[in-house]
Amino acid sequence: MKKLINHVDNIVDEMLDGMTAAHPNRLRRLEGTTVLVRKDAPVTGKVGIVSGGGSGHEPAHAGYVGPGMLDGAVAGEVFTSPTPDQVFEAIKAVNGGKGVLLVIKNYTGDVMNFEMAAELAEAEGIQVRQVVVNDDVAVEDSSFTSGRRGIAGTVLVHKIAGAKAAEGAALDDVHAVAESVIKNVKSMGMSLSPCTVPAAGKPGFTLGEKEMEIGTGIHGEPGVERTDIKPAAETAEILFHKVFQEMNMQAGDEAAVIINGLGSTPLMELYVFHHAIDRLLKDKDIRVEEAVVGEWMTSLEMAGVSFTMLKLDDTLKKLLDAPSDTVSWKRG
Amino acid sequence: MKKLINHVDNIVDEMLDGMTAAHPNRLRRLEGTTVLVRKDAPVTGKVGIVSGGGSGHEPAHAGYVGPGMLDGAVAGEVFTSPTPDQVFEAIKAVNGGKGVLLVIKNYTGDVMNFEMAAELAEAEGIQVRQVVVNDDVAVEDSSFTSGRRGIAGTVLVHKIAGAKAAEGAALDDVHAVAESVIKNVKSMGMSLSPCTVPAAGKPGFTLGEKEMEIGTGIHGEPGVERTDIKPAAETAEILFHKVFQEMNMQAGDEAAVIINGLGSTPLMELYVFHHAIDRLLKDKDIRVEEAVVGEWMTSLEMAGVSFTMLKLDDTLKKLLDAPSDTVSWKRG
Repeated sequence: MKKLINHVDNIVDEMLDGMTAAHPNRLRRLEGTTVLVRKDAPVTGKVGIVSGGGSGHEPAHAGYVGPGMLDGAVAGEVFTSPTPDQVFEAIKAVNGGKGVLLVIKNYTGDVMNFEMAAELAEAEGIQVRQVVVNDDVAVEDSSFTSGRRGIAGTVLVHKIAGAKAAEGAALDDVHAVAESVIKNVKSMGMSLSPCTVPAAGKPGFTLGEKEMEIGTGIHGEPGVERTDIKPAAETAEILFHKVFQEMNMQAGDEAAVIINGLGSTPLMELYVFHHAIDRLLKDKDIRVEEAVVGEWMTSLEMAGVSFTMLKLDDTLKKLLDAPSDTVSWKRG
Repeated sequence: MKKLINHVDNIVDEMLDGMTAAHPNRLRRLEGTTVLVRKDAPVTGKVGIVSGGGSGHEPAHAGYVGPGMLDGAVAGEVFTSPTPDQVFEAIKAVNGGKGVLLVIKNYTGDVMNFEMAAELAEAEGIQVRQVVVNDDVAVEDSSFTSGRRGIAGTVLVHKIAGAKAAEGAALDDVHAVAESVIKNVKSMGMSLSPCTVPAAGKPGFTLGEKEMEIGTGIHGEPGVERTDIKPAAETAEILFHKVFQEMNMQAGDEAAVIINGLGSTPLMELYVFHHAIDRLLKDKDIRVEEAVVGEWMTSLEMAGVSFTMLKLDDTLKKLLDAPSDTVSWKRG
C-alpha cells in the first residue's frame, strides 16, 4: 500500500483539518466532530441540508458545502457510515429554524444511522425530512445495500435541493424537489483497477491484467460482469444504454450529465469517454444542458468511471443553473 | 496498461473533441488543429494569451481557457511538444490586435517550437512576447530541460497574466506581470508510483513497493532522491523547506499555495498533505491568501503531489483575486 498519509488512524481527522485550513472562509469544523459546516451556519430562515457518509469519496461531500448546496457534511471513517451522534451534531448546527433535509446515499449503515440521528433531532423539536439516493442501476441489491446503491447522482440532489433551499422554500418543498431529482437520475460505473482502504492495507478486490468490471460500486462492491478490457466507446455504450433504458426519455428531452472519474483515471481518459457519450446522446437527440467531466464522487484511487444522467424539466433546470459557491461546484 | 481509451493514436483528438462537446459555450476547436480557444476568440483590444505543451497534464492547459485566463491552449501528443505550426494557428486565432503572450513551460522542445511559432507570427505582423516558466526547484537540468522545469506554478502565470490582459493592459505590461509571477513562484514534487504514456505501453520508470522519489518531474523525469516511503508530514517538510529556502520570504508575507495531485493520489491524501503544509506555513508566519488543493497539472495516472508557493505583493494579489471563468478555475 503506497499512500501519502501519516497514520491510518488519523487520515479522516487530518483530512478534515486540511480542508478547513485550505478553505477557512467557507468551511468550519464542529469541534470534536467529523462534521464540516458552511462558515455561516446556521442560516436563519433557510432549510438546512446535511449529507455525508463514509470518507474516501472526496470531494463528496464536504466539497459541496456552501451557499446553494449543502449546509453540512458528515464524514465517517473510510467507506464506513458516520455514527448517529455525528449526524445529529450536523443537524443541530445547520438548523436555521425551518428544519433540515438529510440526503442519504442508499447503503444500509448510512440509512440506519441517519434515521437514528433524525429521531434524536426530532426528539429535540427539530423538523427533519430525509431522502435516499439510489441512482446506480447496475444491481438491485449489493454487499452493503438493500435496493440500489447511491453514487454520483447524489451530487445533483445536493445541487438542486440546495438551490431550492436557497430560495427560502419550506422543508416539504425542498424534500419534494430532492425526490424529483432522485426519481429522474440514473448512474452506472465500471472499474479497471481496485482501491485499497488504508486500514485494510490491501485492495478490496482484484482484477486481471486485461480485465475490467462493469457495474462496480463506489466501495468496490461487485458489479454485473467481468470482461476483457473494451475500448472506451464500447464501454460508454454499455453504461449509456443500461442507464438510458431506465430513463423514460424521448428525442428533444433535456438532460444533465456527469462523467465521474473514480480516482486514478486521468482527465484525458474521462474526456475520451465523454466524446463517446456525447455521440450516444446526439444519436438519441437528447439536449445536454450541462455536462461535467471530472472527479465528483470518487473511490479512493480506483481506476474507472461512472456515467450519470438526469432528465430535466423546467423546474429542475432552473435550480441546476442557480448560483452555488462551494469548493467543488461553483455556478453563477 | 489499463486505460479507458479507444486507440493510442486517437487519444488527443478524442480528448479535444470531448472537451468541446462538454463545454460548447466555452471552448472552440480550431478545425484541423489541436488548438482549443475561448469561444469568442479573438477578443478585440485585448492581449491574447496562449499556452500549451504535451498532453497528459489535464486540466492543463485547456481547462484554463476562458475569460480572465488563457485565450488558447495548444495540445501536443502525450508528453510531446506541440509543433510550431499548431502554436502559430493558436496565435493567429487569439490575436485581437494588441499582440499575443506565449506562456511556455521550460522544456527544450516546447521552448524551441513556441519560439519558432513566434517568429512565424511576427513575420505576419503579429506582435508576440513570451515567458518561460521554470518553477520546479528540484533539479537544475533534466532529461528534457536546460535549466529548471516548469510545473504547476504555470497555472498562476495563466491566472495573473490573464487578469492583467483582461484589464486591457498592453502586451509589455502583461509580459512584465507574467515575469513577476515567474520570479516569485517555486514548486517541487514527489512520486509514489509512475505513469504510462499510452503509446509506450509501459511505465516510464519503476519504484519499489516501499519506495518514493523526491523531486520527480511531471513526465517522470528523475528527481533528487529515492527513499523509503515517509509519512506525509515529513514529505511535506522536505518539499516545503526546499521551496521556501528559494523564496526570499519573511514573517507576515502573503502567499498563494497549490497542492497539486499528479493523477492517482486521492483528494483525501492531498488534504492530509495540506494539513502538514499549513502548519509549516503557520510556523513561518506566512499568511495564505489562497490555497487550492486538487489536480491542476497532472502526470497521467502518476501517484504523488507537488507543492507550489507564490509570494504575493499587492499587484499580484489583486490579479489573483480577479474574476476568471474557465472550466477548471472559476473566481469572482
